[in-house]
Amino acid sequence: MSTRNFKIMIQYEGTRYQGWQKQGKGSKANTLQEKFEVLLTKIAGAPVEICASGRTDAGVHAWGQTANFHMDTQRSPQELMEEMNRYLPEDVAVISCEEAAPRFHARYNAKRKTYCYRVLNSPIPHVFDRKFVYQVKEPLDVPAMEKAAAFLEGTHDFAAFTSAKKGKKSTVRTIEKIRIAREGDEIRFTYTGDGFLYHMVRILTGTLLEVGQKKRPPEDVRRVLNGKDRQLAGPLVPPQGLALMEVRYD
Amino acid sequence: MSTRNFKIMIQYEGTRYQGWQKQGKGSKANTLQEKFEVLLTKIAGAPVEICASGRTDAGVHAWGQTANFHMDTQRSPQELMEEMNRYLPEDVAVISCEEAAPRFHARYNAKRKTYCYRVLNSPIPHVFDRKFVYQVKEPLDVPAMEKAAAFLEGTHDFAAFTSAKKGKKSTVRTIEKIRIAREGDEIRFTYTGDGFLYHMVRILTGTLLEVGQKKRPPEDVRRVLNGKDRQLAGPLVPPQGLALMEVRYD
Repeated sequence: MSTRNFKIMIQYEGTRYQGWQKQGKGSKANTLQEKFEVLLTKIAGAPVEICASGRTDAGVHAWGQTANFHMDTQRSPQELMEEMNRYLPEDVAVISCEEAAPRFHARYNAKRKTYCYRVLNSPIPHVFDRKFVYQVKEPLDVPAMEKAAAFLEGTHDFAAFTSAKKGKKSTVRTIEKIRIAREGDEIRFTYTGDGFLYHMVRILTGTLLEVGQKKRPPEDVRRVLNGKDRQLAGPLVPPQGLALMEVRYD
Repeated sequence: MSTRNFKIMIQYEGTRYQGWQKQGKGSKANTLQEKFEVLLTKIAGAPVEICASGRTDAGVHAWGQTANFHMDTQRSPQELMEEMNRYLPEDVAVISCEEAAPRFHARYNAKRKTYCYRVLNSPIPHVFDRKFVYQVKEPLDVPAMEKAAAFLEGTHDFAAFTSAKKGKKSTVRTIEKIRIAREGDEIRFTYTGDGFLYHMVRILTGTLLEVGQKKRPPEDVRRVLNGKDRQLAGPLVPPQGLALMEVRYD
């Protein structure tokens, strides 16, 4: 039997998990990677490792996380998907499974990611979406936030917008598009780009929300970008509003 | 101070509750009515009873349950709503509050109710809607279900479509409209009528689903109506797919 490479798309509600990435040996953290590796190893009868497009933080959701793994199996992708869904908890599901080229790698080959941050902009709590939105009761100025977002689009050093410690790794990224749309009493921030730094989407959103609340003018985000200092940016907003929507490959 | 009559609209996720209606004294059932009466009595400093448009069963949700209660208070409806929302658990919210005519009664004055039953018609589970849909993996014939639904619209004796024991109370009801709409991988059954018997919406849906699965022809529902026998109708589908959407008053 030869080892085959499978590409899967995964949905999960992040509420119960300490993020995607498994922790060190002996850790009791409840992570999605660990859940999948335990399950796939059981299915294969031999150790299987899974690699996702990137980690998501504790409490962050995914509508279209993508991952790949190698497995010796005679099963069809469809059978494999059904078997995974039979054993996965109800807050995780595999929504597609296909055989990929032998060298396909979910992280290295990811070209573009889309994240969505949902803000409930209402004084009234929302029962059904409560685990997927961050509530901001005060009115928000969408045009001002759009103006600020335009300064963030393009290729920049986003050092001010990450919680990662300064290291040798580049903090330059390209944001292709930031879309801010009001839908009913909700405001959705959609970010598409080639990759995002640790906490970057949540700090970008926290900064844009301060613009929306008129705590800083739209132009101020230029100063933050140029300053490259985390202290200049807005707060890290909570994880439950965030979801990884889509990962694109060539 | 004179007693004022308040009309409120309530949303709740029914998952954790044994339905709307409070149980007998000493019962430890977790009901929404009990939650509201304890809270309102605390706010008023005197016993308050609350009356909803009707009971919802254990596990059934509400987007627009309506209720009224009398209270001696100087608070504005807005203040009262905020105070309730401050103390309610996150799976319950008051989304509107207004002062009503002294004789307004949420149950007696209800003219029309709309319920929605959501079926996930896909072999793939849905992570985010899992608490709000009933999954049917096999394909469903929507036009056949629509044909069957047309026989159910109008004024009929729905004795076959209730779990209530035969008694003196009338089982005649008027269903104004049954709408069946496919939206993506979901099929939504929307029922509007003057009132619904115990378990009626869930048994109607269970029967229509058997038509959709070609287990019975559309015309068969006429035989079920005429037979007035619960044994003739389809199964009671689970509560989590059901939500009370709206209650209309004159």
